[in-house]
Amino acid sequence: MNNASPESQATIDEQCINTIRTLSMDAIQQANSGHPGAPMGLAPAAYVLWTRFLRHSPENPDWINRDRFVLSGGHASMLLYSMLHLTGYDLSLDDIRNFRQWGSKTPGHPEYGLTSGVETTTGPLGQGFANGVGMAIAERHLGARFNRPGYEIVDHHTFVICGDGDLMEGVSAEAASLAGHLGLGKLVCVYDDNQISIEGRTDITFTEDVGRRFKAYDWHVAVVEDGNDLEAIHKAVESAKAETERPTLIMLNTHIAYGSPNKQDSSDAHGAPLGEEEVRLTKENLGCPDECFHIPEEGFDTCRECVGTGKSEESLWQEKFDEYRGKYPELAEAFTNAVNGTLKEGWDAALPDFSKIDGPLATRAASGKVLNALAENIPELMGGSADLAPSNKTIIESSHDFQKNALKGRNIRFGVREHAMGSILSGMALHKGIRPYGGTFLVFADYMRPSIRLAALMKLPVIYVFTHDSIAVGEDGPTHQPVEHVASLRIIPGMTVIRPSDAAETAEAWKAAVRSSGPVALILSRQKLPILDRSKYGPADGLANGAYVVSDSDGKPDIILIGTGSEVHIALEAKAVLAGKGVFARVVSMPSWELFEKTSQEYKDEVLPPDVKVRLAVEAGLPMGWERYVGDRDAVIGMTSFGASAPGGVLMEKFGFTVENIVQKATALIRR
Amino acid sequence: MNNASPESQATIDEQCINTIRTLSMDAIQQANSGHPGAPMGLAPAAYVLWTRFLRHSPENPDWINRDRFVLSGGHASMLLYSMLHLTGYDLSLDDIRNFRQWGSKTPGHPEYGLTSGVETTTGPLGQGFANGVGMAIAERHLGARFNRPGYEIVDHHTFVICGDGDLMEGVSAEAASLAGHLGLGKLVCVYDDNQISIEGRTDITFTEDVGRRFKAYDWHVAVVEDGNDLEAIHKAVESAKAETERPTLIMLNTHIAYGSPNKQDSSDAHGAPLGEEEVRLTKENLGCPDECFHIPEEGFDTCRECVGTGKSEESLWQEKFDEYRGKYPELAEAFTNAVNGTLKEGWDAALPDFSKIDGPLATRAASGKVLNALAENIPELMGGSADLAPSNKTIIESSHDFQKNALKGRNIRFGVREHAMGSILSGMALHKGIRPYGGTFLVFADYMRPSIRLAALMKLPVIYVFTHDSIAVGEDGPTHQPVEHVASLRIIPGMTVIRPSDAAETAEAWKAAVRSSGPVALILSRQKLPILDRSKYGPADGLANGAYVVSDSDGKPDIILIGTGSEVHIALEAKAVLAGKGVFARVVSMPSWELFEKTSQEYKDEVLPPDVKVRLAVEAGLPMGWERYVGDRDAVIGMTSFGASAPGGVLMEKFGFTVENIVQKATALIRR
Repeated sequence: MNNASPESQATIDEQCINTIRTLSMDAIQQANSGHPGAPMGLAPAAYVLWTRFLRHSPENPDWINRDRFVLSGGHASMLLYSMLHLTGYDLSLDDIRNFRQWGSKTPGHPEYGLTSGVETTTGPLGQGFANGVGMAIAERHLGARFNRPGYEIVDHHTFVICGDGDLMEGVSAEAASLAGHLGLGKLVCVYDDNQISIEGRTDITFTEDVGRRFKAYDWHVAVVEDGNDLEAIHKAVESAKAETERPTLIMLNTHIAYGSPNKQDSSDAHGAPLGEEEVRLTKENLGCPDECFHIPEEGFDTCRECVGTGKSEESLWQEKFDEYRGKYPELAEAFTNAVNGTLKEGWDAALPDFSKIDGPLATRAASGKVLNALAENIPELMGGSADLAPSNKTIIESSHDFQKNALKGRNIRFGVREHAMGSILSGMALHKGIRPYGGTFLVFADYMRPSIRLAALMKLPVIYVFTHDSIAVGEDGPTHQPVEHVASLRIIPGMTVIRPSDAAETAEAWKAAVRSSGPVALILSRQKLPILDRSKYGPADGLANGAYVVSDSDGKPDIILIGTGSEVHIALEAKAVLAGKGVFARVVSMPSWELFEKTSQEYKDEVLPPDVKVRLAVEAGLPMGWERYVGDRDAVIGMTSFGASAPGGVLMEKFGFTVENIVQKATALIRR
Repeated sequence: MNNASPESQATIDEQCINTIRTLSMDAIQQANSGHPGAPMGLAPAAYVLWTRFLRHSPENPDWINRDRFVLSGGHASMLLYSMLHLTGYDLSLDDIRNFRQWGSKTPGHPEYGLTSGVETTTGPLGQGFANGVGMAIAERHLGARFNRPGYEIVDHHTFVICGDGDLMEGVSAEAASLAGHLGLGKLVCVYDDNQISIEGRTDITFTEDVGRRFKAYDWHVAVVEDGNDLEAIHKAVESAKAETERPTLIMLNTHIAYGSPNKQDSSDAHGAPLGEEEVRLTKENLGCPDECFHIPEEGFDTCRECVGTGKSEESLWQEKFDEYRGKYPELAEAFTNAVNGTLKEGWDAALPDFSKIDGPLATRAASGKVLNALAENIPELMGGSADLAPSNKTIIESSHDFQKNALKGRNIRFGVREHAMGSILSGMALHKGIRPYGGTFLVFADYMRPSIRLAALMKLPVIYVFTHDSIAVGEDGPTHQPVEHVASLRIIPGMTVIRPSDAAETAEAWKAAVRSSGPVALILSRQKLPILDRSKYGPADGLANGAYVVSDSDGKPDIILIGTGSEVHIALEAKAVLAGKGVFARVVSMPSWELFEKTSQEYKDEVLPPDVKVRLAVEAGLPMGWERYVGDRDAVIGMTSFGASAPGGVLMEKFGFTVENIVQKATALIRR
């Protein structure tokens, strides 16, 4: 790039930028579906960012110290695909021609894991922005943990491009507030301020002073008056990099569908192809040849310089890292293990043995103890709670707060920001090197549901610690009592939900969560629960199979009682009462449907023998779906309404979670 | 109040304020559960607000022109209950003694419909704040619609008290941005800035400049340096009332658990009783008698003056309204009907007759036509979309935008703020006089789930218009394709979910929604669907029963095919193919489980005869729960994974929503 004269460089720059535009237009036109406006307006900024600032290695998209780039407005996917192709990632022109087609690497919105160089799945607005905050947190923490004088092993920026939609969403507001508090100086967000949203001009609803708002969050705010002015963009990014104490918002004035004679600055260009004639006119207007998927050679070569530059950057880092390994072999190994997610041997050896503890214990309390034991051997565990740490028991006692002047801390104070917490946890997992967890009351899982869904879609190993798991929450009443929430998590494809029944199962639940390669929700009780005497009952490690016989009948069971969490204990009591009446009951603890579904048919038939058709499930939640295990919608004791405000014990009784009710229902089912 | 000397008035004020504190402490201590800190810190502000500003009529809490008061931080419920009791609402001291007990009128968090004077159910943070924005919108719109010169029939303020937790939540940020844009000058929010959250001091996570942020939203911001300074509070509220162009945030510096010698300014006082000894010490410190539930007579009398004042205010309004009725009889009748939710006769007479339309139509498009027809006869219908109006078809064409200078408009531009939209719709419904609806893509129902849950808990008649209802969304890919969302709405207690199969069913779905007294989610297709020829098929008004036979077999059915939405059409085609193979199939359209569950057993058995046990459900969503109708988890063709990016038709085929697959599966089920 440096060999070109300023004039010819300007020509090449323009060529490259227009190529981003035309590739985007062409791919969208060919698919007859997509969002051309944003890529066309953002082309100059993306070009400057990717070719002049982004430290990345297109041939090794996994290089751990690369700058992260997040396209929060995922509908602008063709911007990202154009950049990936032009700068040399494993994305061919044929892939771009297959935009939005079955089996292609270029889906409508960028999907993590499907396309090299896509750092996160975006589309639902605001999520990418908050993922970026998570990545920037991960960078700061890992730097503090692993860097040594002269060896900045972890030292990169996180760049985010977002639009007005991202900034209208509450999740980005939450994340921005936290990012400002934490002083994430290496986070740079470019705001594509094009004044257009789907319904029309943004001034029909979005007239707030965005810059002032971000200043209120303690961000550095830079303004680029003309989004086509490469030098102004360059200076703004430089000023962002120079600012190390605060995250930066670059407010970039752009034109949606820049260059289109009839659709520039119009909401028509947001979410539909321009139309063949308008594509032609736009190319003419931009001075581009009237060809589809045309890439001028000079521009292509310039962009592809990123491959070489990236390799050099990576090599320099690798040399440095090799030196570091020589000097700090243990740290280097720990770093590699952290990044690869490799657990050290014996990571689960030092878990508390709850069989020795007297008296009952809430599973949330057991969870706190297990987390702390695990944290000793898994230094990657890092997380917190949305202002409920004392209740969720999510504090790692041996560590301290993660704060701007205490970056080694493993306890994040997320504040009352469940949604941002969810997306930040995903961002930390995406970064790699950290095993994130986050807690809140189960009922507030709803606040972070869009983040959880994306974690499941991306198969991210995030651990959610959801406590206060039923009406047994008690006095706080129906607003704080989950009813439909366990069901609501079970129905997200790819989620693993685990509701342990006692402390020992809680330890097993955490082990399953740590072993999982996808997201796991731990569902934990507020109230104390007995600790089962495992000399009498089935061993807790049966949890790994999702369901196991916790107490069998003496002969062939007349009925199988299936419980989860706190209800296992009532089922066990009911079993004893039934035995007194000559009824044989088997009790199955079924903490996780998903883990159970993964076992063999043989195992399933062992736990739930097909010839024992009389079954009764007991779970203080919405009964939907239990039919698959009990065969009949009437064979469930569950919640079909909201709860109420009263002491938890009273509620459990009023809503039928009693030994008497189980016995009565079981007897009726057997008689039927 | 005016007869007392300034000195004795100051004494009485102090008595009243301390009584709020002691009632709160005592009730929470007695329940051994609750949140004393906030009521104690907020007592002076609540006292000033309720006795000096709030225009309300305790003996008629439904007076339509009352000021609305929302306690967004619902955990401070004892503040509200204390005020309700002291100012003369139907809430006795015994009710307060029963705080948080089974069947009491004083649940842990305030619950709408349970306690007179509680304007909305709060607890999940940020929701009340956004409800308040909805109430303020309703006030502005109804005023514009009904007020006439000299007759300000609708003319009241909405007061909200919120805490740091409310302001950390994204939903309040979204709502505040919109409130600022709309210039809701009669909205006044008091921010209880006590610097304490559950995990400790707010400065561990919340250091943003809140005042500056609200100024960025174009709010008027007032600061009260000392939350115990009644005159300063008074002046701040006056300044808020004087400001008519912008909403006001009053930043009130308070002390959590004010007066408690050992727990003031400590997070310990947030969510647990102070303890008996500390209650005693606090009373001593505040100069209150060491008695439980003590109310000094003079203070009580002062507070109860609200009853008389309220009656006078109400009478004045009633006189004015009677005059108005004389002058504008039609308007007055329309107003009364709007407030009572009374529909005018023939409201559903002018709906489009889709049987006459040629060619296929997306149910979202049909919905737009039906909405517009209904809007002519139901002037209370008002709503919008979260920046997807052109896709959701939610615009009332005969009206215009609701904007600060166009308050009669019925089309609200919510912006990309689904969560605030949800809570604002609830606030509008709570206000009464408006029948609110709001739209977004079904997949983004997740963003507003906490609001939807509360609407269901409060039984509010809100209509959600959720379009783009399955993988048939197509190219936008899995981030935009609902899979688990229909199931996720069905599991919320009290929700009615309706997924019509064609235009005629869509009209019936809207009718059912308008008739509903609780929240209804309309689930609508992006893609075009055939319009069933009702001369051949069962009439669409069968939708009112949730399920009906859309096409019966010639003889006793060998199998019942049950479909919803777009899948009904594939089922009908499959029926024909099966008939060719000598298999009798009945096709049931089942747009709404909830409506079906409300019908008689006789009707249910007619549609799904118990002796026809071979059944197959087809729905392009998570199959959970269908077992209850088909008897077997294997008898569902549904989605068990996320979707993908490709044209919708391709996806429907790839994921098995084809005639061939239904025929094959049906044949296998019959053979089994």
